[in-house]
Amino acid sequence: MAMDKVRYAGDPVAAVLAVDEPTADEALRFVDVEYEDLSAVTTIEEAIAPGAPLVHEQWSGQAELRGSSYGAPEKFKGTNICSYFGYSRGDVGEGFRKSDYVFEDTFRFPKVQHCSLEPHVMVAHFEEDHLTVWSACQDPFGLRDQLAAIFNLPLSHVRVIVPYVGGGYGGKLYVKAEPIAAALSWKAHRPVKLVMAVSESFKTVTRHPARVRIKSGLLADGRLLARECEIYMNTGAYADAGPRVNQKAGYRTLGPYRIPEVKVDAYCVYTNTVPAGAFRGFGAVQVAWAYESHTDLLAERLGMDPLEFRLKNLLKKGEPYTPGDTPVDCDLKEGLLKVAKALDWKREPSKPNTGKGLSLCMKDAGGTFKIAGATVKMASDGSVVLLTGTVEIGQGSRTALSQVVAEELSLDLNQISVAQLDTDVTPYDVSTSASSSMTVMGLAVQRAAQDVKKQLLGAASKVLDKKFAALTLKDGKVHSRGGKAVPYGKIITGYFGSKAGEIIGRGLYRDVKTKRAALGSTTTFWEVGWGGAEVEVDRETGAIHLHKYVSVADVGKAINPVQCEGQDEGGVVFGLGHTLFEQMVYEDGQLLNPNLVDYRVPTFRDLPKEFSSALIENQNGPGPFGSKGMGEGGLLPVASAIADAISKAVGIRFYDLPITPEKVWRALREKARR
Amino acid sequence: MAMDKVRYAGDPVAAVLAVDEPTADEALRFVDVEYEDLSAVTTIEEAIAPGAPLVHEQWSGQAELRGSSYGAPEKFKGTNICSYFGYSRGDVGEGFRKSDYVFEDTFRFPKVQHCSLEPHVMVAHFEEDHLTVWSACQDPFGLRDQLAAIFNLPLSHVRVIVPYVGGGYGGKLYVKAEPIAAALSWKAHRPVKLVMAVSESFKTVTRHPARVRIKSGLLADGRLLARECEIYMNTGAYADAGPRVNQKAGYRTLGPYRIPEVKVDAYCVYTNTVPAGAFRGFGAVQVAWAYESHTDLLAERLGMDPLEFRLKNLLKKGEPYTPGDTPVDCDLKEGLLKVAKALDWKREPSKPNTGKGLSLCMKDAGGTFKIAGATVKMASDGSVVLLTGTVEIGQGSRTALSQVVAEELSLDLNQISVAQLDTDVTPYDVSTSASSSMTVMGLAVQRAAQDVKKQLLGAASKVLDKKFAALTLKDGKVHSRGGKAVPYGKIITGYFGSKAGEIIGRGLYRDVKTKRAALGSTTTFWEVGWGGAEVEVDRETGAIHLHKYVSVADVGKAINPVQCEGQDEGGVVFGLGHTLFEQMVYEDGQLLNPNLVDYRVPTFRDLPKEFSSALIENQNGPGPFGSKGMGEGGLLPVASAIADAISKAVGIRFYDLPITPEKVWRALREKARR
Repeated sequence: MAMDKVRYAGDPVAAVLAVDEPTADEALRFVDVEYEDLSAVTTIEEAIAPGAPLVHEQWSGQAELRGSSYGAPEKFKGTNICSYFGYSRGDVGEGFRKSDYVFEDTFRFPKVQHCSLEPHVMVAHFEEDHLTVWSACQDPFGLRDQLAAIFNLPLSHVRVIVPYVGGGYGGKLYVKAEPIAAALSWKAHRPVKLVMAVSESFKTVTRHPARVRIKSGLLADGRLLARECEIYMNTGAYADAGPRVNQKAGYRTLGPYRIPEVKVDAYCVYTNTVPAGAFRGFGAVQVAWAYESHTDLLAERLGMDPLEFRLKNLLKKGEPYTPGDTPVDCDLKEGLLKVAKALDWKREPSKPNTGKGLSLCMKDAGGTFKIAGATVKMASDGSVVLLTGTVEIGQGSRTALSQVVAEELSLDLNQISVAQLDTDVTPYDVSTSASSSMTVMGLAVQRAAQDVKKQLLGAASKVLDKKFAALTLKDGKVHSRGGKAVPYGKIITGYFGSKAGEIIGRGLYRDVKTKRAALGSTTTFWEVGWGGAEVEVDRETGAIHLHKYVSVADVGKAINPVQCEGQDEGGVVFGLGHTLFEQMVYEDGQLLNPNLVDYRVPTFRDLPKEFSSALIENQNGPGPFGSKGMGEGGLLPVASAIADAISKAVGIRFYDLPITPEKVWRALREKARR
Repeated sequence: MAMDKVRYAGDPVAAVLAVDEPTADEALRFVDVEYEDLSAVTTIEEAIAPGAPLVHEQWSGQAELRGSSYGAPEKFKGTNICSYFGYSRGDVGEGFRKSDYVFEDTFRFPKVQHCSLEPHVMVAHFEEDHLTVWSACQDPFGLRDQLAAIFNLPLSHVRVIVPYVGGGYGGKLYVKAEPIAAALSWKAHRPVKLVMAVSESFKTVTRHPARVRIKSGLLADGRLLARECEIYMNTGAYADAGPRVNQKAGYRTLGPYRIPEVKVDAYCVYTNTVPAGAFRGFGAVQVAWAYESHTDLLAERLGMDPLEFRLKNLLKKGEPYTPGDTPVDCDLKEGLLKVAKALDWKREPSKPNTGKGLSLCMKDAGGTFKIAGATVKMASDGSVVLLTGTVEIGQGSRTALSQVVAEELSLDLNQISVAQLDTDVTPYDVSTSASSSMTVMGLAVQRAAQDVKKQLLGAASKVLDKKFAALTLKDGKVHSRGGKAVPYGKIITGYFGSKAGEIIGRGLYRDVKTKRAALGSTTTFWEVGWGGAEVEVDRETGAIHLHKYVSVADVGKAINPVQCEGQDEGGVVFGLGHTLFEQMVYEDGQLLNPNLVDYRVPTFRDLPKEFSSALIENQNGPGPFGSKGMGEGGLLPVASAIADAISKAVGIRFYDLPITPEKVWRALREKARR
């Protein structure tokens, strides 16, 4: 499959199809590949060095020019720069000139993997000119688009079915090996199953390693005046979601602060490594690590308390993040003060080698231009099937979306089923991503349920001969003023004159497109996460003991509080991974640790000793009942909060993740030596 | 499973579940059943004899009292009469008194089987409190109702999926062995597959054997004045669709003639034989055999030409069949004269032992109270998926319904796919039966497509900034007066602002309920079939040589002429089966020939030497583009046309089917002896 050139160790070269795995293994021995060694670039530095070998000789010109980007993409021709995003407002040079202080820091983020418990898995079946694919994917409609384009089929000839998915975290967005399975099925005239091993998923998609340089200008009182950010994202050998991740990283790098003059340059860079794509946080994780560490450093340099420094510069509710975009939709101070209180911020730690850190991050949630449809189908007994394109990836969407239906229709949750996700029949949804489902799909589902409600009340009005306005729904029955309560089923069978018939409601959600917004459409809502950590550093071993972690999430309204807390805690644990443990290690272009033994994810033993997750519910979300999406916010503040706590504990600042015991131990030795 | 009593040889007694068929066969040997011999009734005569053993001790009171039925059902308590349908108008006694002649005949119809090439087959999977069933059935929503009731689940917890079905003919309506498979899955916590052998399908459902007595009063000039019909339908050991088949037989027994005074009594009778249910013609086949043979006998007795006799008594287009029901919707003379012309009716056959017969029959099509919904989903490239509850049972519904969409949306047929039928997501449809799909579902599909068209034109009006009325659809493009033609895909992506989005259209069809109609709702349309046969009888062997068969069908508009002809020819061949060959033979309560060797279906060698099928297209149907349903009409006239041709050829009238060579040979011997 790799045409002329293999671009990374893991690039599919050939596929072997067999009736079972042992036979395929046997057949693999007969595949003989002769490789010619080529020079490789694996790091950002190598890739952008003058005269670096090109990962792709042909320049695709994939520059992202939406929003107020600048710079001519043509100038990147003949380089490894895959795409570019730029943003500026005001005059950053002027800002720096007016500043009392200007500080600059550079941070690095490692290559990490999603480690979904279920690896990539799919079945493809070509029958004449119709292709059916069962895939553990997060964007069945996007996958349908790609497969239709690849095999030159109308969209109506490609059917993607998604069963329960064993974790996604963005790793199952965008087409992966499905076209390979489909081509094999087309050749074999049989359904073809392709299940990846963990090591193969490691070689399929990762998070972007990043280098983020931030330069800020401040007044003596601590007010931010100007900021310049230069971001390089290592997107690996193929673009996947890279250009969009890079764009979002660039857009999100300003942080939740009021900064009059800004300039951002974000570069997405090809290297000969596993492609990087969407991953929980979608570019925000890398830049949040950078801008919040930078914030702590700024406070430190000015001799200010990092809490006070943040409170001074935070955007207020209703203030614009960038002109034309949705204004900040929550009180950023509220969560920060909650974290400070939970950490007993003002009290000095009583033990030595112990420190505290806090952080907050903001992410334009919803992704880029969301469209979602939903259908609610009420059968003649009043029970309901919900059709939604949101993929259940363990986040609990089936339960939460069913709750919205149950609430709107005053039905027991056990009367509601969620239909199999199938692009042939399920209404369109852009993707299950960007913490958007509760808001975007939630609204579509709510509107579909409200459509059913309207039709049901209309039918009841006829059947019961009562005025529409005199009728209400309660506990599966239509109640009328001065009348008897009648079960929905009786209304429907009465209306249709038999057990035949049903009520079908539809709902649609669309983001607002506007040229005034930097990214072309407005942010659906702001996902905000606050976090605080108290750590103790073991000077003998360099081990970090996480005594306490406090997470606060702005959820608007928790449709299912237990699920929300679970998601928030899960986000924090993800953050612990890249903060303290995880990193894909390359040597001579080879990935050394593509397995769950050598690659270290957090375990239950790594959980904070005290661990709390608080939900702020101010009904300030645009979703059903004032809800917002959530699930990524908890992840964002972890690294910088812990890094600052370490700095407070032992006076060492880390600029690169992960902060492993070895790194800490070496830094302690180095510091002692100086 | 059989509780206390086994009611027929074939009644399921126990189920054995195993990982494969050989293991199940092995396990079966360990099932030891001890039967106590009970007296059985297998024929109508035995079942209605005074003191007959009761098939069901408990009287269920299943009398069909819809319509203008009379008679107290309680009087059938303690008998084998399962249900009763009565209809009368005028005073039939007075009619007979005023008549110049009164004649009475009795006809019999045998027990025959559907012989679908695919036997009954299903997979059931219980997962917690959700049941999924894949079944080769014709009424997935009816099956869902039954399974929900049996397992006490909300309808939304039962999902029925129907793949392509290898023939149905009514035999796959109503629940069959699906609850057994479901109960086994519930027990085993695994999916359970149940595939019937041909012999088991023979013991699952059959057509009703019938005895039909018709008495008619006439004036000397041949005008019909009064008719009394007494029908007994042998429904086997369980009711299945029996009561409804009996009702329809009763309602259809008057034939396409103007008869002022009528009285009908139709009795549905339990016997210890395989249950009889729905079967292509649904009661019409048995009574059409009777009333058209009776018609020929009346003409013969009056010395009239059977064609002339019919033309004198035929209902005219627009005349009511019964008051309150849909009037006759075609010119009955037109088809009859077509048949006569094709048979060169007036010309005497040149060869000896040769004769001609003709016949016409009318059936209230659409079944009882039809409701159908459809959804048309246009993707962002303008291609379409159709959601329809009509089961593809080989009749070509997927093609014909897709053609309706293609025509309404001016799309290439290859842009249209039909979604998998799945009760969770497919809009409700009563059942695939009664030749109704082209009209009932056709209208729902057409309306759904028109809904898409309206939305598409609305979107185009915005995208192109043109008036709605100035836009038309042609060949997948929106055309505007004085503007460029724009592909649908461009309109949709333009309207939604991205590749995201789609247009979903909905359509619904409902029959009209009215108390004025004898059956509670009006007939959707009249299915009319005309047939004519020319046969030669071999006096040596009794064999019937079918030299010619002419079939004419009133289809309104043939959406797919090749499919229509195929269906009509198939109907005729079905008719040849029960006319000349087929009969399930019982001895001592045991079915002797439940296999395709001893049970003789027509083969290609039995086809008429000359065989034509003509479609009358007057756009007189209520379906899309003036279409009507079809597919049963061809079957109805076969038996009586052939029987009359035999009578003309050798002067012997048969009252019982099938007219086998042995029967003919014996009758010829008998006649020669007299």
